[in-house]
Amino acid sequence: MNLDLNRIRFVSLREKIMPAEQAIQLIKDNMVIGMSGFGGAGEAKTIPLALAEYAKTHPLKITFATGASLGNKIDQKLCEAHVIARRLPYQADPTLRKAINAGEVMFTDQHLSETAEQMKHHVIQKPDIAIISAIAITEDGQIIPTGSVGNSAIFAELADQIIVEIDRTISPDLEGVHDIYIPKARPNRGSIPLTQVSDRIGTQGITVNPDKIVAIVFNDLPDTSASMAEPDQETLAIAKNLINFFEKEVEIGRLPQNLGPLQSGVGSIANAVFSGFEHSSFTDLEMYSEVLQDCTFQLIDSGKMKFASGSSMTLDTCADQVMQNFEQYKDKIVLRPQDISNNPELIRRLGIIAINTAIEFDIYGNVNSTHVSGTKMMNGIGGSGDFTRHAHLAIFVTKSIAKDGAISSVVPMVSHVDHNEHDIDILVTEQGLADLRGLAPRERAREIIDHCAHPSYKAALNDYFDRACQRGGHTPHILNEALSWHAKFEEQGHM
Amino acid sequence: MNLDLNRIRFVSLREKIMPAEQAIQLIKDNMVIGMSGFGGAGEAKTIPLALAEYAKTHPLKITFATGASLGNKIDQKLCEAHVIARRLPYQADPTLRKAINAGEVMFTDQHLSETAEQMKHHVIQKPDIAIISAIAITEDGQIIPTGSVGNSAIFAELADQIIVEIDRTISPDLEGVHDIYIPKARPNRGSIPLTQVSDRIGTQGITVNPDKIVAIVFNDLPDTSASMAEPDQETLAIAKNLINFFEKEVEIGRLPQNLGPLQSGVGSIANAVFSGFEHSSFTDLEMYSEVLQDCTFQLIDSGKMKFASGSSMTLDTCADQVMQNFEQYKDKIVLRPQDISNNPELIRRLGIIAINTAIEFDIYGNVNSTHVSGTKMMNGIGGSGDFTRHAHLAIFVTKSIAKDGAISSVVPMVSHVDHNEHDIDILVTEQGLADLRGLAPRERAREIIDHCAHPSYKAALNDYFDRACQRGGHTPHILNEALSWHAKFEEQGHM
Repeated sequence: MNLDLNRIRFVSLREKIMPAEQAIQLIKDNMVIGMSGFGGAGEAKTIPLALAEYAKTHPLKITFATGASLGNKIDQKLCEAHVIARRLPYQADPTLRKAINAGEVMFTDQHLSETAEQMKHHVIQKPDIAIISAIAITEDGQIIPTGSVGNSAIFAELADQIIVEIDRTISPDLEGVHDIYIPKARPNRGSIPLTQVSDRIGTQGITVNPDKIVAIVFNDLPDTSASMAEPDQETLAIAKNLINFFEKEVEIGRLPQNLGPLQSGVGSIANAVFSGFEHSSFTDLEMYSEVLQDCTFQLIDSGKMKFASGSSMTLDTCADQVMQNFEQYKDKIVLRPQDISNNPELIRRLGIIAINTAIEFDIYGNVNSTHVSGTKMMNGIGGSGDFTRHAHLAIFVTKSIAKDGAISSVVPMVSHVDHNEHDIDILVTEQGLADLRGLAPRERAREIIDHCAHPSYKAALNDYFDRACQRGGHTPHILNEALSWHAKFEEQGHM
Repeated sequence: MNLDLNRIRFVSLREKIMPAEQAIQLIKDNMVIGMSGFGGAGEAKTIPLALAEYAKTHPLKITFATGASLGNKIDQKLCEAHVIARRLPYQADPTLRKAINAGEVMFTDQHLSETAEQMKHHVIQKPDIAIISAIAITEDGQIIPTGSVGNSAIFAELADQIIVEIDRTISPDLEGVHDIYIPKARPNRGSIPLTQVSDRIGTQGITVNPDKIVAIVFNDLPDTSASMAEPDQETLAIAKNLINFFEKEVEIGRLPQNLGPLQSGVGSIANAVFSGFEHSSFTDLEMYSEVLQDCTFQLIDSGKMKFASGSSMTLDTCADQVMQNFEQYKDKIVLRPQDISNNPELIRRLGIIAINTAIEFDIYGNVNSTHVSGTKMMNGIGGSGDFTRHAHLAIFVTKSIAKDGAISSVVPMVSHVDHNEHDIDILVTEQGLADLRGLAPRERAREIIDHCAHPSYKAALNDYFDRACQRGGHTPHILNEALSWHAKFEEQGHM
């Protein structure tokens, strides 16, 4: 117990320690709750799980804002207890996804950089209560986050009341890895003083008025381990296509030897690409990304990567090794609020190479990264828009076919546009790489069909494109056929 | 002639004066030419017109990059002479549009902030020759732009050779109104030090190595006068709806009394909105926009607007009055390079209210601002994406119907997405205003159909939405019907 109390170094706050069952009495029907959690790491656990239990017998409806996705099936349990009226800005839970697609939960799918901005400037409602996962509270009342920062800082700043969850599963050694900077409110904002990936511009913890901390609970549930699919033949081919491209760009002097700061979406393809860097000629790699995965730490271990900035650490097999030896990574990584990790000002300034995964893309380079068949939400746009729109090179990767070939990931027209033709530079499948830089739509179609489409769909794509071109237009389409591939899949089970 | 020479104050450069017919010999087949011109103002004239004439008998193919649209039918004449192989980043010429839609000219339709960025960082080809329209060349060799800055500064910096057109039609009094700042190349860029709309962060002219200036010609063609349609009943109603909304936002404290910096697309609706400010309660208005139109200067004249920042002055009936009394505006306006006027870093920092015109939007809030029926290019995305994506409030306006009601501007699914559902805050037609902030797609549909759709299309939109909801999905759609309104219009002449 002494050890636990040592985590609350602002002594008078120790009076606020209480059981979760008591703390949740602060949460009232129709409130907006801002909770820690990003990429399935560092989420608040004790309070939402107690709330889900309580709500089984005491119905209430809450708007839940987080950083991004949550671990420990928290979204599932809250959803099953029918507590979630609205959810933002991202989720990745199968049960919640089902409720969203049934229209039972309103999902405000946002660019991850924008929730903080919009709450601060009265575009959307600010949280009534913030539930912040913490390693410790310092002598001067700063809240030290855990394995993710996400929106914790802004939630704590804007909420009327704060509940802190002291996470006893996280090593106190993490203290010092966070860099908390909150941009000033407009109109006197000024520039964000970060000019290099490794810059520290803020404080180690979240500065709050300690009087706002109304409850402290302890948590003993560890972060869920991320489980990453092993690379297969296709993801390895995608990684190879991309790394070959990078090598050529360096060779002709269009990219520096370390490529510039890298961002990567979460997933097995991204993981394969980053593993591919291990055996590449690139040196002094840097990341300016959201989620630091196993591959980040492996590249640091091998000396390939010199610094990684993110908002969250989502670890799988590396988790124990990293957490138990955290001191050795502390000068090589930093965790930031997501409106800094994903900030357009900084992404444009730093010149980031952004690598994200598409559900599908079309022959003109529009990308769908959220909606299956244009209707069903998968997870959300996440940070892919923040990075794509401002990247030095905006890259999307996907396998050229899905469901054993029943679906082509390259289609005449995407069924939902998350990233439009103006913003995409490079598309990659296991078939090859389409370089769209500076091209007009008709040129892009040639490049995409030739290099990215699966052989079994090439003839049909060429046929569509040829017939569309005969009708004319800057972006030739046959409107009553454009979405017919998706409609056919819905009706017949294949495109 | 003395007066003309006074405009070339770097004396040794006077040797470079030559007739346009001689200067165009520098331009070779397959070159990339970067030319002044933005919003039909301040474009290079003498050289491109001489080139169009020359090409009638001496075929050659050129990539033309500009700031944005050109006046004096320059795009038309170059297009008719078949000189344009590729055009970027924007155009607004009927003849060129036709050639683009026929696939004869490759059009690289870009966000206006990105051309400079992409050329500087080897994403697209840099210009071989820059043709820069200038009021004067200073004692130290700075080139002073004319009625627009656009991409002139970056073209002059990157080109191997520069041809300067001294524009004798523009008052020398404009010298001092420009503020030329070129962000440093990565990786050592640093922040752009602009924190207020009126900040001056650069030099009055474009700094170049004078040795790169290989030719100087004179121009006597004035800028084309912009001709703006008078407000009609619908545009006035749109303006009223929007101003009512602003008044309520100020009343409840969500917007400051001066609203914050305003951006506006070019056109009669935007003009009507800005004219509406004249009789509003707002004070100390500021613009941080691309094109300063008549209405900007009228608001300055009446004391409503305290400062306006843009990249171009596109004037109609105000032109003579403004140009002849320019000294009185000089401390109230500034003209910047378009990668500064449209810079995401600055737009986000300043918290801009962005008002742009849509061709159509759909019931979920996706906006098409470029393609008629998803295929035919109208003008280009211009700056609408630069502003929308980073604005404090992203607003699109349009009349609810077009072609006497044969077309609904509110459709089940837009036929091309330039701005997606994640980025749109407010939609306005003459019917009313849809406030989409924080809403999920199904909620947006209700808001948009109820408040923006024309009464003659409401039943059909509700019918589509209801049937789509029965099928489910976060964003309910019936894929083989989603674009049927456009297909029907193509076949039957009405939706």
